[in-house]
Amino acid sequence: MRFAPFCGYINIDTLEFRIIHKCGTNRARLGEIKTPHGSFETPVFMPVGTKGSVKAVTPEELKDAGVNIILANTYHLYLRPGHKIIERLGGLHQFMNWSGPILTDSGGFQVYSLARLRTISDAGVTFQSHLDGSTHFLGPEEAMGVQKALGADIVMAFDECVSYPADYDYVLNSVKLTNLWARRCLDSMENEDQALFGIVQGGMYTDLREMSARALVDMDFDGYALGGLSVGEDRETRSRVIEETRDFLPDDKPVYLMGVGTPGDIVDAVMAGVDMFDCVMPTRNARNGTLFTSRGKLTIKNARYTDDERPIDENCRCYTCAHFSRAYLRHLFMAKEFLAYRLNTIHNLYYYSRLMEEMRQAIREDRLSGYCHGFYENQKSGVAL
Amino acid sequence: MRFAPFCGYINIDTLEFRIIHKCGTNRARLGEIKTPHGSFETPVFMPVGTKGSVKAVTPEELKDAGVNIILANTYHLYLRPGHKIIERLGGLHQFMNWSGPILTDSGGFQVYSLARLRTISDAGVTFQSHLDGSTHFLGPEEAMGVQKALGADIVMAFDECVSYPADYDYVLNSVKLTNLWARRCLDSMENEDQALFGIVQGGMYTDLREMSARALVDMDFDGYALGGLSVGEDRETRSRVIEETRDFLPDDKPVYLMGVGTPGDIVDAVMAGVDMFDCVMPTRNARNGTLFTSRGKLTIKNARYTDDERPIDENCRCYTCAHFSRAYLRHLFMAKEFLAYRLNTIHNLYYYSRLMEEMRQAIREDRLSGYCHGFYENQKSGVAL
Repeated sequence: MRFAPFCGYINIDTLEFRIIHKCGTNRARLGEIKTPHGSFETPVFMPVGTKGSVKAVTPEELKDAGVNIILANTYHLYLRPGHKIIERLGGLHQFMNWSGPILTDSGGFQVYSLARLRTISDAGVTFQSHLDGSTHFLGPEEAMGVQKALGADIVMAFDECVSYPADYDYVLNSVKLTNLWARRCLDSMENEDQALFGIVQGGMYTDLREMSARALVDMDFDGYALGGLSVGEDRETRSRVIEETRDFLPDDKPVYLMGVGTPGDIVDAVMAGVDMFDCVMPTRNARNGTLFTSRGKLTIKNARYTDDERPIDENCRCYTCAHFSRAYLRHLFMAKEFLAYRLNTIHNLYYYSRLMEEMRQAIREDRLSGYCHGFYENQKSGVAL
Repeated sequence: MRFAPFCGYINIDTLEFRIIHKCGTNRARLGEIKTPHGSFETPVFMPVGTKGSVKAVTPEELKDAGVNIILANTYHLYLRPGHKIIERLGGLHQFMNWSGPILTDSGGFQVYSLARLRTISDAGVTFQSHLDGSTHFLGPEEAMGVQKALGADIVMAFDECVSYPADYDYVLNSVKLTNLWARRCLDSMENEDQALFGIVQGGMYTDLREMSARALVDMDFDGYALGGLSVGEDRETRSRVIEETRDFLPDDKPVYLMGVGTPGDIVDAVMAGVDMFDCVMPTRNARNGTLFTSRGKLTIKNARYTDDERPIDENCRCYTCAHFSRAYLRHLFMAKEFLAYRLNTIHNLYYYSRLMEEMRQAIREDRLSGYCHGFYENQKSGVAL
């Protein structure tokens, strides 16, 4: 593996990325990203605010949980309430009252996973809304236009995310199309306040990942994302693809692993040199009653918590753990009370934020390997919860 | 009407009720109630925390919305998680992390409105749980026992709430039963930290209301509730029954109108000398997208709010109005986002709290009639919202 000697600010147009410290024994690095809406350190986790709201929590609660940047979904906001309405109302930051950095995806992933009756051409994708069946078209220019209207700090190139498993030839053609679209996204960028990331595809094929990555790096994006992972492949395959692809990307740009994942997945990827993450896992699991703790996962509906006076995690300092018992949280969850989803979400977001903060601190102090070893050991002990 | 010259503290066992000021031209009075969990001024509105949670909001948000006392439902908590569990966990205050005063109802109303296959005898009511069909029995002694375990500051006598319309003879027998049960509730009270209120029934029949009230007053409760209203009768009938029944109750005890109602209902009843109110209206309407404003009700899903940058109510200082536009709240509601229910609830609770605070201030300053006139005029102007 290569460990570039780079350190110090790089001004990449609208987004500044600085590497503060690099580990000596793995690819992990502590970085800082500056955006028009504030700075944050990396590795960072971005909670998902699909429809302009991180489900069940307010902007203040996000900040209190240690969240520095959120992700919003272009596909959802394009369909409802519509990007033009959000633009007229001052952009997504103002609409949802979140003053920190926002990243929007391109809509590509949802077009493939949610929309119906898709037809793909070089121009883009025609699809039917999952809400009302109405017909829409999104191509690279349209995706850039919608993301410009939303006004996120970081926007993503429009890509095709292939399913898994997929034929080599299909993935090859898809990479070619994604590269073509990436070029057109760059060419159609009008908003100089926004940073644009390219998305590396290529399925689980090393040579296609390399082809995709090299083409994007030649185009010089503000950052690079690894797309098309956590789509059904096993953990070993995912780790291999992340590590291999990471080698094709420059060290002086942020690297973002899209849609991944479990705390363990994230720890692995940080070691492999990934800087940014997003996933619905902390928020969705919270609503399903699965809570993350320093000793593994806890299923709050379990009868053993019926009269358990302890907080979810005695080592946690989140609002939920400071104020409510497992017994109360179990009761709220069994009774389907709204407050259950919210208190669980606050805890899980805090858990993810703290995990990232602890990893950043470990990198800073050159002890990440030890930290990760302890993390894996603690996760295994969860049966005792 | 009688206007007692009373003023100053009365120590009624566990609850102190003091009249601070009385209006000269109506029965309204400004009072103060002291409980083991704190004091509050009356007239007061109590939001409903059915299952040990005022739906969608935290204890902190209740306080921020001006809430001083909440109501919880004995029937629901008895069935789930069970009063014994709550008792073991330190009582309802600690269970739900609400440090202020709590009033619990007796379970009677829900036994009639929610449970199945009821059979009533002098001993009490046998019924089937609406959750799992299991058979249970609640009588006055059992209702007191459950409420003792929950540990509310104010508990209610077990009563029969008759439907409307109802035959005179049925209501007559029901009043006799409720009076019998009231006596047994008093006799079975063991917890000296709890205040016990009797519930006046009698349907819409003046003489039966009088019979019910006089019997309860003879028993000397810590306060008196008006039950069996808002059960289908028209507003005039309700006002008549409230005013007539109020005359049969002493001025030196708090009077509580159960389950009522709209802001207009509450304004009317304050003028008639009622001190305490509870209703699911602010919280349930919030979840249905109906928001209270100084100029009447606003239905947030209305298309006219699609790009309305204004807060729900420009005169409101609640968290929701300070941070979010009608357009965003409409979007959240249409997208069924959890945050919609919560932000709407915060606003409606703040509206009710402010209405009560304004009435208290108006009583203090001998201008309640003028305030109420302005209230009715403002409500009529709502079409312009």
